[in-house]
Amino acid sequence: MLEGLDGAGKSTQCRELKKVFRTPPVPLFTHQPSGAGVIGEMVHSLANENSGLVPLAIQLLHLASHAQHYESEILPWLAGAGVVMDRCWWSTVAYGYFGGGLGDTMAPEEFEKLAMLPARGRRPDFTFVLPVSDPLNLADVSAGYEWLLARYQESSIAVPRLAIEETTDFIIRVLLSKHLVDR
Amino acid sequence: MLEGLDGAGKSTQCRELKKVFRTPPVPLFTHQPSGAGVIGEMVHSLANENSGLVPLAIQLLHLASHAQHYESEILPWLAGAGVVMDRCWWSTVAYGYFGGGLGDTMAPEEFEKLAMLPARGRRPDFTFVLPVSDPLNLADVSAGYEWLLARYQESSIAVPRLAIEETTDFIIRVLLSKHLVDR
Repeated sequence: MLEGLDGAGKSTQCRELKKVFRTPPVPLFTHQPSGAGVIGEMVHSLANENSGLVPLAIQLLHLASHAQHYESEILPWLAGAGVVMDRCWWSTVAYGYFGGGLGDTMAPEEFEKLAMLPARGRRPDFTFVLPVSDPLNLADVSAGYEWLLARYQESSIAVPRLAIEETTDFIIRVLLSKHLVDR
Repeated sequence: MLEGLDGAGKSTQCRELKKVFRTPPVPLFTHQPSGAGVIGEMVHSLANENSGLVPLAIQLLHLASHAQHYESEILPWLAGAGVVMDRCWWSTVAYGYFGGGLGDTMAPEEFEKLAMLPARGRRPDFTFVLPVSDPLNLADVSAGYEWLLARYQESSIAVPRLAIEETTDFIIRVLLSKHLVDR
């Protein structure tokens, strides 16, 4: 999983990783939310327009969209060549809870359980959090990523600030060292 | 809260109870889902059309609608004259989990926590489950109501089959005995 704030270079790394993994079995490259399908479009418009929805309603709409995405696209693929995701439930927690005004509604652990529901108990093998130049711009969301990194020390890493190619090399080296890829 | 299968007479009892509680402070009579607002209409159409959505996505859409309903209409009223609801999270559990094909996804206790989220920890003071003539018509949903009645024995009751007026009298007598009303 590739995670991090907007502008961290997740799409760029996805593009670079696609070049590396272009011989079969090719993993599924996808991003969350997929935005695809009737529910994706509807949720996108409701959550982004000034719809007067309360934070919990907005997050539940997002989760409904994620549930559909996981069930129809991601879970069937997991048995095969693996999945590289641009954002996953980490974004739901960092943006939806820490950045979404839900702090007074429930504990972060409780919201995290919600955010993980769509994946039906499946967890990412490894999560890379890409850096941005000015994380203080979104201090609450950044705090969410810090919380998650501390929580999943064994299966995640904060990627250092490097050039594009070096970042890709870094990711591949970590995946090789964890035996998550074999080439 | 009034609960039970379709056709159990919940609307009828709401109408009768409104006649009893017509002097101030008048409670809020509402039903879940309210169907009101942009999210209610959208969820209603998505969940009822043959939209190809997976069960978990449908339930999360319902919960988003409930969250909006509780936050905007019900929770503000609770401090005042009380609320009489036609359906509550019991319906979400009975129809959505037991009748909604989620049995292989998670435990009922886990889904119940989800279903209770929109009410932000508020529980009904008392729940009346009204009977229908043929519960076997919806055996899985009925099993859900049985599960809930067993789980909340102190704060719920299966109302016996009685005529309309006698049912209203029964409800009022229970509310008086529990000191939930004083007239």
